[in-house]
Amino acid sequence: MKIVIVGAVAGGASAAARARRLDEDAEIILVERGEAPSFANCGLPYYVGGVIESRDKLLVTPKQRLIDRYRLDVRTYSEAIQIDRQAKTVLIRDLKSDNEYSESYDKLILSPGASPLRPPISGVDLPQVYTLRDLGDADRLSQAGSQAEQAVVIGAGFIGLEMTENLVRRGIETTVVELADQVLPPWDAEMVTSVTEHLRSKGVKLELADAAESIVPVENRLLIQLRSGKKLPADLVVLSVGVRPENKLAIEAGLEVGQRGGIRVNEQMQTSDPDIYAVGDAVEVHHFVDGTPVQIPLGGPANRQGRIAADSIFGRSAHYRGTQGTAVVGVFDMTASMTGLSEKSLRAAGMAFEKIYVHPSHHAGYFPGAEQMSLKLLFVPKDGKILGAQAVGRAGVDKRIDVLAVAIQAGMTVYDLEEMELAYAPQYGSAKDPVNMAGFVAVGVLKGDQPIIHAEHLMEASNHFLVDVRSPEEYANGHIPNAVNIPMEELRGRLSEIPYDSRVVTYCQVGQRGYLACRVLVQKGFQVANLSGGYTSYQQYRAIATTP
Amino acid sequence: MKIVIVGAVAGGASAAARARRLDEDAEIILVERGEAPSFANCGLPYYVGGVIESRDKLLVTPKQRLIDRYRLDVRTYSEAIQIDRQAKTVLIRDLKSDNEYSESYDKLILSPGASPLRPPISGVDLPQVYTLRDLGDADRLSQAGSQAEQAVVIGAGFIGLEMTENLVRRGIETTVVELADQVLPPWDAEMVTSVTEHLRSKGVKLELADAAESIVPVENRLLIQLRSGKKLPADLVVLSVGVRPENKLAIEAGLEVGQRGGIRVNEQMQTSDPDIYAVGDAVEVHHFVDGTPVQIPLGGPANRQGRIAADSIFGRSAHYRGTQGTAVVGVFDMTASMTGLSEKSLRAAGMAFEKIYVHPSHHAGYFPGAEQMSLKLLFVPKDGKILGAQAVGRAGVDKRIDVLAVAIQAGMTVYDLEEMELAYAPQYGSAKDPVNMAGFVAVGVLKGDQPIIHAEHLMEASNHFLVDVRSPEEYANGHIPNAVNIPMEELRGRLSEIPYDSRVVTYCQVGQRGYLACRVLVQKGFQVANLSGGYTSYQQYRAIATTP
Ligand SMILES: Cc1cc2nc3c(=O)[nH]c(=O)nc-3n(C[C@H](O)[C@H](O)[C@H](O)COP(=O)(O)OP(=O)(O)OC[C@H]3O[C@@H](n4cnc5c(N)ncnc54)[C@H](O)[C@@H]3O)c2cc1C
Ligand SMILES: Cc1cc2nc3c(=O)[nH]c(=O)nc-3n(C[C@H](O)[C@H](O)[C@H](O)COP(=O)(O)OP(=O)(O)OC[C@H]3O[C@@H](n4cnc5c(N)ncnc54)[C@H](O)[C@@H]3O)c2cc1C
Ligand SMILES: CC(C)(COP(=O)(O)OP(=O)(O)OC[C@H]1O[C@@H](n2cnc3c(N)ncnc32)[C@H](O)[C@@H]1OP(=O)(O)O)[C@@H](O)C(=O)NCCC(=O)NCCS
Ligand SMILES: CC(C)(COP(=O)(O)OP(=O)(O)OC[C@H]1O[C@@H](n2cnc3c(N)ncnc32)[C@H](O)[C@@H]1OP(=O)(O)O)[C@@H](O)C(=O)NCCC(=O)NCCS
Repeated sequence: MKIVIVGAVAGGASAAARARRLDEDAEIILVERGEAPSFANCGLPYYVGGVIESRDKLLVTPKQRLIDRYRLDVRTYSEAIQIDRQAKTVLIRDLKSDNEYSESYDKLILSPGASPLRPPISGVDLPQVYTLRDLGDADRLSQAGSQAEQAVVIGAGFIGLEMTENLVRRGIETTVVELADQVLPPWDAEMVTSVTEHLRSKGVKLELADAAESIVPVENRLLIQLRSGKKLPADLVVLSVGVRPENKLAIEAGLEVGQRGGIRVNEQMQTSDPDIYAVGDAVEVHHFVDGTPVQIPLGGPANRQGRIAADSIFGRSAHYRGTQGTAVVGVFDMTASMTGLSEKSLRAAGMAFEKIYVHPSHHAGYFPGAEQMSLKLLFVPKDGKILGAQAVGRAGVDKRIDVLAVAIQAGMTVYDLEEMELAYAPQYGSAKDPVNMAGFVAVGVLKGDQPIIHAEHLMEASNHFLVDVRSPEEYANGHIPNAVNIPMEELRGRLSEIPYDSRVVTYCQVGQRGYLACRVLVQKGFQVANLSGGYTSYQQYRAIATTP
Repeated sequence: MKIVIVGAVAGGASAAARARRLDEDAEIILVERGEAPSFANCGLPYYVGGVIESRDKLLVTPKQRLIDRYRLDVRTYSEAIQIDRQAKTVLIRDLKSDNEYSESYDKLILSPGASPLRPPISGVDLPQVYTLRDLGDADRLSQAGSQAEQAVVIGAGFIGLEMTENLVRRGIETTVVELADQVLPPWDAEMVTSVTEHLRSKGVKLELADAAESIVPVENRLLIQLRSGKKLPADLVVLSVGVRPENKLAIEAGLEVGQRGGIRVNEQMQTSDPDIYAVGDAVEVHHFVDGTPVQIPLGGPANRQGRIAADSIFGRSAHYRGTQGTAVVGVFDMTASMTGLSEKSLRAAGMAFEKIYVHPSHHAGYFPGAEQMSLKLLFVPKDGKILGAQAVGRAGVDKRIDVLAVAIQAGMTVYDLEEMELAYAPQYGSAKDPVNMAGFVAVGVLKGDQPIIHAEHLMEASNHFLVDVRSPEEYANGHIPNAVNIPMEELRGRLSEIPYDSRVVTYCQVGQRGYLACRVLVQKGFQVANLSGGYTSYQQYRAIATTP
């Protein structure tokens, strides 16, 4: 068996290592355009920021180790430039000597990844405009950073924000420009308003719902002109507006690609040519939750797909289940994480869903250091099946999303979340974990115990009688316009202050006392709904309504 | 509806709060012997240690709030002393006035908890011998701690170790005496050898496989005499040798109790009397994994059971799924966590199982601060169904156990772990998460790709040809007796050094290179097995073999 693999990082190196384990005698050739195989793409921003101090650390599995340990034929500075499917050969260019030669294969695996998009704006090719994909990019950015005072990051996705954090870490005044009216576009807008605030608190300037229209060199510096008319001076620009599958080889070879350019593969990661497999950022997969074709460029899927491709080649039963979009990003001291479908993708797909918000502490409130998180759960109204979840906060956020990611994998419902038995000691969680809590609330909504209204609907409508059931102090610190304050503790004695024939909305700080109030009022015959997520969610919605 | 609830903390208060939400007009009486309802039992050790500074913090939901917010009739210093099932009344003693009165009920919920065991050794009732269950205990211990220089903790379960940590935090020289030959008896011994080491590194003295036989007062101090003959001086003793369900009321009322004294309940938390429910530490439940009756005194189950009892009373469909024993404990800077069945309980039950060990980093190794954990996975050999998991380390341990706890809930297999899509960025995890890793290894074992041998079998047998495939430096730093060192990188060229007709065992530091070596040798026709968990697991086994 002779296997040629194009691209030797996440997907490619994983496929190669697995292939070697499955067949000690196979000939396995890794063709890599860049200087190093198996490096830590995901660590690059932190190398630029100096968090990862040594460049060697980025070489997760150095070339020589791949050779010695896995007996792989690793060819760096070698670009695959053409596939001859008939002859089953790949044309390879040695980038050092510029020689070209042909290599035959029994099976070919493509793991070329995705390249940073370069929007067609003038000045985008100036030397001070950087993208970040490989070690060379990181070196250049790192170098540029040492002279820069001001930077503009275009694109507030996860790489953009990681770069922002790391530029700020180096003392560079940084502005982020983002086309969407929010940071971290895969998340729902209201969930990341706290991230926006946090970025601002760290001195980052944000230009949301705006776009760079041109980059003009002015002496040694740059001037970034925005659609809004704003002009931002900078010493360097980082472009991070998304990636595009590297599909040139595949397309030229006549392999099928999807609408957005991802190489089409089946569950065995096999392309339309049964002798050619493709994995990682370059492929289109189906979304685990709704089955639609997606391109989700993440390290975990790439690694697992590489392993599956190798398994398939050796006739192992292995199939990729689809990508569910589990992701996490650190933004200074905050963490945003998500899994499954977002509300916006559910809306775009026209799928029925309900959602709830909770804002619990990451561990028992009585133990020092408890940090609040916001957790949003999306589920099917009919049967409670979990569709997606997002969490934003500090500690413990990734844990809850991982738990919910497994629940989605298992096809679980919100009823299952109620019963989950998670590890509890005061410094790790709560006897009723945030995940249980989300389950309780969702079930309450589905069973009709907790009629809810969402902040966006509250803001649209004005015919509600709003009852703020928090304490007078909380109320005085800020409340929804026109709300009357009847603390939960006094509610039962003051029912006469609430009009019996109005539509009543109760709310508190996070939704819990509002729910209690709601239970009292429902049983007393009022028409009432609780504001899901309470004043906290309200403020998050208000923040997006007033963005930028 | 009139509901009387005995015990107003985890299970009782949860039942009461839920009952109120379900029925605004129900009469709900909480009968609590102690000074406060709804307090944080789990926080007590940290209050004694000064981590939780304010006593008020422990009053999670103060009495007045239960009254004002939930309109509950909360009677503290009130002990239920007798149940008349015929008349449906409870006899209550007001502990302040010593008055007794009878209260009728439609439904009764028992959540009296469990009381600390007091082994029948002489001196156990001396005033300097403490147990820790309620606020008064914590006050007394806290007070005693301020004068003490030396303490002995009897019992190395999770409360014992939490107390140990907190006594040490207060500068008290502490010795732990434990009957078992390991700390944290619910865990498997080899998994907690690092905890033992860690305790010792913090100055804690451990007397394992020993028992206190008597406690003798000597002037103002105590002398604890051990079965081994050792004598330990101390200013105070903390007894933490387990708890016993508070079943007196139930037994006297003729309710069924299980073999170990737990009140018998069905899935609705209903006792043998349909008008009496029981929840929490006082009940016997079935184990989620194997269905056997168990008593697992933990806060999460108690809280959820209380909620289910209330639901059942109001005719809601709710059933308790059983307890799976998910637990976590912090021991200084370490964390031990587990879920499902342990190896020792599987052995005791005579169930077929296989196990694997991995020792991955809690996040990407190239990102600063990666901490190693040990993760053990237990599963059914036939179909890979997950039976249990244990993890010990520092950061990220609770996350992996929570993920595996959900997998167990969902009835997942090790094949599912391979495909789990968990959140990855370098500071949170790895592209192949420890949970994936455990899945890969377990599947490899089940499919026969990775024949393994366990350290305990290796130590029993001597007829193996042992190949240490680590580097010469690692080998020099310590290796298994009689192992020959052939680094993985040289293995393919040195096959002739390995006898073809011996049973070969390969090993490395954690199992991964040993596995690679194993793959090479298997395919070259050798009879070979990999040492699961490598030298790290070997050392853990060696540590238990040489305990104390
Ligand atoms: C800065 C940055 C941060 C990231 N952070 C995270 C994160 O935190 N979490 C996460 O899950 N993911 C993250 N990712 C994404 C993750 O790195 C990718 O999803 C993953 O590496 C994709 O694997 P792949 O094998 O498809 O492609 P890559 O890992 O990109 O490897 C493709 C390789 O193929 C080579 N190649 C391409 N074409 C050819 C050719 N014709 N001939 C020869 N070689 C070729 C390229 O040089 C490249 O080295 C990050 C990516 C970047 C760039
Ligand atoms: C020090 C300590 C640390 C702990 N740490 C953890 C942890 O980290 N994680 C975890 O999951 N669990 C922990 N637990 C266990 C957890 O607290 C219990 O599982 C949980 O509280 C059990 O709830 P319960 O309602 O059954 O009993 P309890 O919470 O103990 O409540 C029972 C109440 O009933 C009262 N009572 C008993 N009999 C009568 C009567 N006849 N009349 C009136 N009142 C009566 C008692 O006074 C008591 O207040 C810890 C327990 C202790 C003591
Ligand atoms: C105070 C106590 C009685 C609260 O009981 P509780 O109200 O049932 O529990 P919680 O405060 O956790 O709240 C859960 C309820 O609030 C609801 N809720 C939580 N957050 C919400 C939100 N943001 N929006 C709407 N509802 C919310 C849940 O749905 C649930 O209600 P449900 O059971 O009717 O579905 C009890 O938990 C307690 O005192 N615990 C401390 C004692 C203890 O547990 N000790 C052992 C561990 S240390
Ligand atoms: C180095 C690299 C090629 C390794 O590939 P790999 O060997 O398949 O992957 P890992 O090192 O994660 O090891 C997984 C293998 O080791 C085995 N393993 C892990 N721990 C083990 C243990 N303790 N005992 C036995 N086997 C173990 C697993 O079973 C698995 O083998 P399998 O696939 O045959 O079942 C590749 O992961 C890499 O370089 N990654 C860095 C690049 C990258 O991923 N970038 C994007 C993210 S930054």
